[in-house]
Amino acid sequence: MKNFSLEMRTKIYFGKNSIENLNNHIPDYNNILLVYGKGSIKKNGIYEDIYKILNKFKINVYELNNIKPNPEITKVYEGIKICKENKIDLILAAGGGSVIDTAKAISAGVYYQDDIWELFLKDDKIEKSIDIGVILTLSATGSEANANSVIQNDKRKEKLAIHNDMIRPKFAILDPYYTLTVSKYQTACGVADIFAHILEQYFYPEKDAYIADRLAESLMRSVIKFGEILITDLNNIEARAEIMWASTLALIGILKAGKYGDWASHTLEHELSAYYDIAHGAGLAIIFPAWLKYVYSDDKGWKYREYGINVWGINPDLTDKEIAEKSIEKTINFFKKLELPVTLKEANIDDKYITEWAENIINRLPSKEIGNFKKLNKEDIINIYKLAL
Amino acid sequence: MKNFSLEMRTKIYFGKNSIENLNNHIPDYNNILLVYGKGSIKKNGIYEDIYKILNKFKINVYELNNIKPNPEITKVYEGIKICKENKIDLILAAGGGSVIDTAKAISAGVYYQDDIWELFLKDDKIEKSIDIGVILTLSATGSEANANSVIQNDKRKEKLAIHNDMIRPKFAILDPYYTLTVSKYQTACGVADIFAHILEQYFYPEKDAYIADRLAESLMRSVIKFGEILITDLNNIEARAEIMWASTLALIGILKAGKYGDWASHTLEHELSAYYDIAHGAGLAIIFPAWLKYVYSDDKGWKYREYGINVWGINPDLTDKEIAEKSIEKTINFFKKLELPVTLKEANIDDKYITEWAENIINRLPSKEIGNFKKLNKEDIINIYKLAL
Repeated sequence: MKNFSLEMRTKIYFGKNSIENLNNHIPDYNNILLVYGKGSIKKNGIYEDIYKILNKFKINVYELNNIKPNPEITKVYEGIKICKENKIDLILAAGGGSVIDTAKAISAGVYYQDDIWELFLKDDKIEKSIDIGVILTLSATGSEANANSVIQNDKRKEKLAIHNDMIRPKFAILDPYYTLTVSKYQTACGVADIFAHILEQYFYPEKDAYIADRLAESLMRSVIKFGEILITDLNNIEARAEIMWASTLALIGILKAGKYGDWASHTLEHELSAYYDIAHGAGLAIIFPAWLKYVYSDDKGWKYREYGINVWGINPDLTDKEIAEKSIEKTINFFKKLELPVTLKEANIDDKYITEWAENIINRLPSKEIGNFKKLNKEDIINIYKLAL
Repeated sequence: MKNFSLEMRTKIYFGKNSIENLNNHIPDYNNILLVYGKGSIKKNGIYEDIYKILNKFKINVYELNNIKPNPEITKVYEGIKICKENKIDLILAAGGGSVIDTAKAISAGVYYQDDIWELFLKDDKIEKSIDIGVILTLSATGSEANANSVIQNDKRKEKLAIHNDMIRPKFAILDPYYTLTVSKYQTACGVADIFAHILEQYFYPEKDAYIADRLAESLMRSVIKFGEILITDLNNIEARAEIMWASTLALIGILKAGKYGDWASHTLEHELSAYYDIAHGAGLAIIFPAWLKYVYSDDKGWKYREYGINVWGINPDLTDKEIAEKSIEKTINFFKKLELPVTLKEANIDDKYITEWAENIINRLPSKEIGNFKKLNKEDIINIYKLAL
């Protein structure tokens, strides 16, 4: 196992009516910024649930809404302005990953000396941040209990991430009933995103983090099981609950304990959603199979063997290469069952920007390479995009 | 899944030389109480490693040592006195569960209005506690990152537990190299303890926490694999590392997320070690198989089926009852491979106190019952002790 440090300090409240736990936290604050998306929380009653509690306390509540999927940096600037003008001491994010990631970028940006986009371009310190509380309404990104924020900059055609313990939410309310109105397509995208998060950490070319990889396999099997149930029965609350908990566990830190991950597929996908209006999970369902095919080599066949046998129950008597092929097929079929596109063509994306995307990715990196399972240069990246066509 | 709240805020530093992370924490404190056991940390160099760092800072260090396994309340009183007299603001526990649990009881006891043993006898609030840092030297109890403390009261022949988030360590240093000098017997007891912690959470008679149970199975398979390696190769650092990490994960909270546990076996074992000088892990290796045999019933056979197939690889074509029998046999064989006693007789304990133990347990409980998988009354408890003879 590699050395690691792990902080999982987000206090998690899970289950029906867990919104009630807001009552314990709100008294600690004076000025709250409520961040949410395009208003679905008003339709499904979550907005009302929140205000039923907020109104009990003598606090000022400000709002920042209309956050779109693949959230944009302009909304972050807007939020920073509100925070500075109104001495906000808690940002309450009610939504999925885009809303939470916006809240995180605001939280870091208020005290950051520079334009906050600089922080996405370079690794820099965050000295101070505003507390964040989460009310999760979409199971996907794991942002509810991790230290990451992914934000898009439409003007610069960039989609980039920051990772910093200072933006980890203080508390997260996870009520699976709050996800019951999520559409079939968005639910499927969430399931694909969760599955991809586990894969990114699982595919690493060393054997020395046994427990982390066995936990990852258990979680993948669970996501497959309940993802397939959900897609045919969106009201299945047990499946909603297990998928919600899987989204959090996938990125809370235990799957990367003692190892590194790969994360190249996520980087390749971010170019897609920076250029096209495609959901992140759908983009991953396209990129991941192509990546799995491309990075195979016989010396790393053992990892596909583990994946194929332990996750997909493939016959261990087959060769590594056969198991790899079968497990990639099973992965594709899983995404198909989720009714997601598995090629660029199915998402109406052609090869127009492939070279541009590869150059964007490579030019941002001093090493001119991404990934760990296999180091990918510009040509490799182009090849993977082509395999995904 | 049942509702739950989960707080895992102990900052974990894992790996070789992770002691260096003390440098980040010590500057926050002025007066430190170093708690340790019978001096093994002086022989294996850990004591020196600690002081090499402590001496760099202008702080006062006090010591409380000679903590014995199954730690005694008298040492807690002694520690509380030192803390009160010297304004201790950090208790640094360098050792295994007994040392950490002593530190936790001291941490809660300094500000507790009553005799601290009262807190073990009744559920009461802890308003304030002293920060705790852990340097783990024995993989077993999971105390390094949980909110429990188990203390013995020799005068009253009681061994009892408290559970409170206020005593959860602030940080924990987990260096598997620090466990290399742990004897074969103590290593085996630790492995049995970890395995039992997982079983206690796993055996619950409802099916609705799928992910938690699949993670538990992964962790049990890992503990079996690396436990068996360690017992024939005590210097295997990979096995030391995986077992250390398993000890922490077993009780950090994820295995009980969405369900309840049983914990009757632990309660039955605590009577043994309150009356006899037996290691907790050895006691569990005796009690658990008897418990597994006694609480079987056909309506709960599905849980033994999951356990047998997913943990021990038993043929799924067998009946639940056959799988139960085989999995209990496998469990016993695992403890035997660890060279632990699996009957009271092998630990030189006879039936003298069996009724007294059952009465002790029952009399402490208003409901006069313990356990969840099967509710156990006094007669049940006596029967389990007898099965363990």
